[in-house]
Amino acid sequence: MAKKNLQDFIKDLNNLSFDSMYQNDFFLTWEKTLDELKATWSVADALRYLREHNISTKVFDSGLGISLFRDNSTRTRFSFASACNLLGLKVQDLDEKKSQVAHGETVRETSNMISFMADVIGIRDDMYIGKGNTYMHEVSESVQQGYKDGILGQRPTLVSLQCDIDHPTQCMSDALHIIHEMGGIENLKGKKVAMTWAYSPSYGKPLSVPQGVIGLLSRLGMDVVLAHPEGYEVMQDVADVAAKNAKESGGSFKVTNDMKEAFKDADIVYPKSWAPFAAMEKRTNLYADGDTDGINKLEKELLTQNAQHKDWCCTEEMMKLTKNGKALYLHCLPADINGVSCKDGEVESTVFDRYRDPLYKEASYKPYIIAAMIMLAQFKNPAKVLADLEKNGNSRKFAE
Amino acid sequence: MAKKNLQDFIKDLNNLSFDSMYQNDFFLTWEKTLDELKATWSVADALRYLREHNISTKVFDSGLGISLFRDNSTRTRFSFASACNLLGLKVQDLDEKKSQVAHGETVRETSNMISFMADVIGIRDDMYIGKGNTYMHEVSESVQQGYKDGILGQRPTLVSLQCDIDHPTQCMSDALHIIHEMGGIENLKGKKVAMTWAYSPSYGKPLSVPQGVIGLLSRLGMDVVLAHPEGYEVMQDVADVAAKNAKESGGSFKVTNDMKEAFKDADIVYPKSWAPFAAMEKRTNLYADGDTDGINKLEKELLTQNAQHKDWCCTEEMMKLTKNGKALYLHCLPADINGVSCKDGEVESTVFDRYRDPLYKEASYKPYIIAAMIMLAQFKNPAKVLADLEKNGNSRKFAE
Amino acid sequence: MAKKNLQDFIKDLNNLSFDSMYQNDFFLTWEKTLDELKATWSVADALRYLREHNISTKVFDSGLGISLFRDNSTRTRFSFASACNLLGLKVQDLDEKKSQVAHGETVRETSNMISFMADVIGIRDDMYIGKGNTYMHEVSESVQQGYKDGILGQRPTLVSLQCDIDHPTQCMSDALHIIHEMGGIENLKGKKVAMTWAYSPSYGKPLSVPQGVIGLLSRLGMDVVLAHPEGYEVMQDVADVAAKNAKESGGSFKVTNDMKEAFKDADIVYPKSWAPFAAMEKRTNLYADGDTDGINKLEKELLTQNAQHKDWCCTEEMMKLTKNGKALYLHCLPADINGVSCKDGEVESTVFDRYRDPLYKEASYKPYIIAAMIMLAQFKNPAKVLADLEKNGNSRKFAE
Repeated sequence: MAKKNLQDFIKDLNNLSFDSMYQNDFFLTWEKTLDELKATWSVADALRYLREHNISTKVFDSGLGISLFRDNSTRTRFSFASACNLLGLKVQDLDEKKSQVAHGETVRETSNMISFMADVIGIRDDMYIGKGNTYMHEVSESVQQGYKDGILGQRPTLVSLQCDIDHPTQCMSDALHIIHEMGGIENLKGKKVAMTWAYSPSYGKPLSVPQGVIGLLSRLGMDVVLAHPEGYEVMQDVADVAAKNAKESGGSFKVTNDMKEAFKDADIVYPKSWAPFAAMEKRTNLYADGDTDGINKLEKELLTQNAQHKDWCCTEEMMKLTKNGKALYLHCLPADINGVSCKDGEVESTVFDRYRDPLYKEASYKPYIIAAMIMLAQFKNPAKVLADLEKNGNSRKFAE
Repeated sequence: MAKKNLQDFIKDLNNLSFDSMYQNDFFLTWEKTLDELKATWSVADALRYLREHNISTKVFDSGLGISLFRDNSTRTRFSFASACNLLGLKVQDLDEKKSQVAHGETVRETSNMISFMADVIGIRDDMYIGKGNTYMHEVSESVQQGYKDGILGQRPTLVSLQCDIDHPTQCMSDALHIIHEMGGIENLKGKKVAMTWAYSPSYGKPLSVPQGVIGLLSRLGMDVVLAHPEGYEVMQDVADVAAKNAKESGGSFKVTNDMKEAFKDADIVYPKSWAPFAAMEKRTNLYADGDTDGINKLEKELLTQNAQHKDWCCTEEMMKLTKNGKALYLHCLPADINGVSCKDGEVESTVFDRYRDPLYKEASYKPYIIAAMIMLAQFKNPAKVLADLEKNGNSRKFAE
Repeated sequence: MAKKNLQDFIKDLNNLSFDSMYQNDFFLTWEKTLDELKATWSVADALRYLREHNISTKVFDSGLGISLFRDNSTRTRFSFASACNLLGLKVQDLDEKKSQVAHGETVRETSNMISFMADVIGIRDDMYIGKGNTYMHEVSESVQQGYKDGILGQRPTLVSLQCDIDHPTQCMSDALHIIHEMGGIENLKGKKVAMTWAYSPSYGKPLSVPQGVIGLLSRLGMDVVLAHPEGYEVMQDVADVAAKNAKESGGSFKVTNDMKEAFKDADIVYPKSWAPFAAMEKRTNLYADGDTDGINKLEKELLTQNAQHKDWCCTEEMMKLTKNGKALYLHCLPADINGVSCKDGEVESTVFDRYRDPLYKEASYKPYIIAAMIMLAQFKNPAKVLADLEKNGNSRKFAE
């Protein structure tokens, strides 16, 4: 892919239709048109271009980006902070422990109370099946209503930083990484990608990454194979989405219980642990019932079940099965690396080490993806904004 | 009230005398002249006007706003963060758990150590009678001394975000809300406002809101009625202030143990739980003595006492007693809503629902009130600053 | 020292050689040339000059300053936040408890993951012998590698906010304070400074301050005396550095077990508690072994040992021994003050009170020292940047 300049990204944008992203939110990639996804990648690339050329991308002079993390996070927390900072917004964390939210306040009320100066709300809520995405919609509807009723002076954009169904900022970054590695989105057609389960000594890793990956890459004409041991099925609705996507995009979608079959001639592999959807659903109910014994029992069962599948590991042997033995290895990080972070894990250390640089690059797109999502929701004409930013040419860092 | 533009707010300011707010702090509303309160509302309205017209209000290019919350907070925390952000200051939280303050350091030392780049210090310290306001004065005097001695390059403004006596940012927002709802401050004269106790299943809610409300609204020529069950008296000093204020402003101030009497023909009602002043004083001493048994015993007593007054609820029945059955319902939020956040609480859900939009608007003034307090303390000629901001016309959000 | 203006500081810089500070880090003062230290002080003074003249020093329009505090901190936390804010960077705290770092991720990975938009990383890691400085180097090498590999768009500067060996931001501030108090660096030659142990009821205070002080002040031609009871030796390597420095700078370095000898005719005294190096080393190993009993036993021993040296206190009596009874008293704060923060401590309250203002001033240099370290690492030609900032003349605070 020839090095593009800002005018190229703007030209790309001008050929795309993404009007309905304006004043809208980003929950699930399959709720967006392909043009809208492409616009997100183009704006992300354009913002990166500007930053790399030391041109300020501050489109806000003041304003808050609210973050609510209901699960631990390093990468996504820093990516959200970076994205907000890049655009001129100040992150204000909603720490539910330090707040009064606990004592019975409605989602509608909290959402409005924190949003008087908020341009963006980023939420991670991925732990409980049927909850995270629903909660984000409640927040979004609450602030939309608040804006309509004249309570809020602006409509905050909601960006999902991972829900129980999808992890859109991760998967869009993964995809942009592939696009760059493969030399353009048009080169993805017919490429085989293996999204496979892998063993991890920890249980209960979210499903949103594998679901997000099959839901997104099936849009791009790729041959998507989802592989996992029996009993590790993902949410059926998402599998259906992937199948439908594949049909429409001219690719394919296949589920197998054979890791080798998935790796065979794959151009891209994404081996990663997750918990079975059915078990996660059960766990959600146990938490709702406050059934600690049940939770502990389930955890024990899951760990035992996992331990039967230690052979699901991205070994050098396995990598040899891939296209020329050189498939692009992906991971959302942190990975469970054999002999490094655990005895047996998702990947052999020599494999991981060989792909360290591409893996870090994969992660490096996330701040730009988040910033692009915000920009497309906040500005009617982002192409013009980008052009004006370049024209204004304010330095990000003081030019000597 | 006809829609005003910035020139109108500036004209208002030019007719007011508020010189002594410059380089001063905001602790209690009754320490300020009426002109000073009016100036605060005018600057708040002007800042809101500018933001709503997408004009930058960043009067600081850099600088810190220090926050110290000794009690949980969502609304006030976000309001302070919003106000600082609006003016260009960066919030730095003083988290006493992560600091070395514990090991015997003096208030004077800590105050100076955190203030080298601080333009504002916001403190919430409302839990213990006789402590919060005193502590804030110590901080204020410490940084004043530090400034005088050449240690600090600037004098940080102290804004009380709630003390044991008053909750000025809340009550000033409540009042600005009323002013807007009633079509101007001049229309408040002779209006009846009922600040009444209400039942809540939790005990020990701070007194600063009811005290702040009677201490402030009695300045505006209103007929202020404070109603509570016997034994739920507020701090006598503040009741005296309210009585004196009423006399001077041509309004009235009355205390009753009859909620109905308070609601009768009221234009405005503010039903809200609080703990008896005498009990809070006792609790403060028990905490000082580390008397856990005593604290638990007191809590039990207070809950039992509260439970005898479940009839103190803002029901539809009660609302019918008010002027045309349509009094403006106020609350600092979050409210204890019957059947929503608790079984029996401060207000029936249908009443609360009907006033949801005005309640959220009431809350929306707080960031602007805080920003106005800061601005009046930091700039000798805020009218000129506001005019210059409009003239400069920098966009808050990039203009497409 | 005649009041300098910006041109004077720029002239000073132009006479110094500090090219290798660019794109480099600040770990230990004795790894820097004297010119480099002088450049740091000059830039710190210049930044202070600009701020005091209400001239913006924002050299970053956006960008993050990452902070990682592995020990409690108020002063340094606020100093780092102030320095970042002064330059236009937004602090993002890496809270290891809220992150996923725990589960076995490498330093290399975390360092890169948090640094996509980071211009600075500030770390405090002072608790364990042999760990803090090593960890900082690992982080620095990781991001250097990430930058080289094209993963990071910029090379983040690492600033040590205290390691197990040195506390460079503290000691550089202490030194700048002395330079100002003594009327110029040239006046330090031949002055006697007593870095002495003092009793504190708490044990285990870090060695980095006394080590940093002897390692730095021995550079400036001073007569440095390190005094402590037998058994409270500092790290031998650092004592060797101080001896070597003294030789080269024309000063002297001496160790004594007699506090009075140290105070005798001293121009400057710095009495402060610390734990014996050997004990700290032992403690580090006990922690590594998870030996709680051993840790408790060691603590008891150390407290008993300390208690034998309550006479090591900076009393009025002791102060009388110093040059004209008027030595400049230094402390990194907070101090253990007799009858204030403890019964018996490091200093008598009348001594402390007399030096309160100079002590606070000493602390006030830290934000500027940190900002200077960042600026020298980030800009090839800081003199030109400073000159341009003055020429541009943007106001820090809106000019009325």
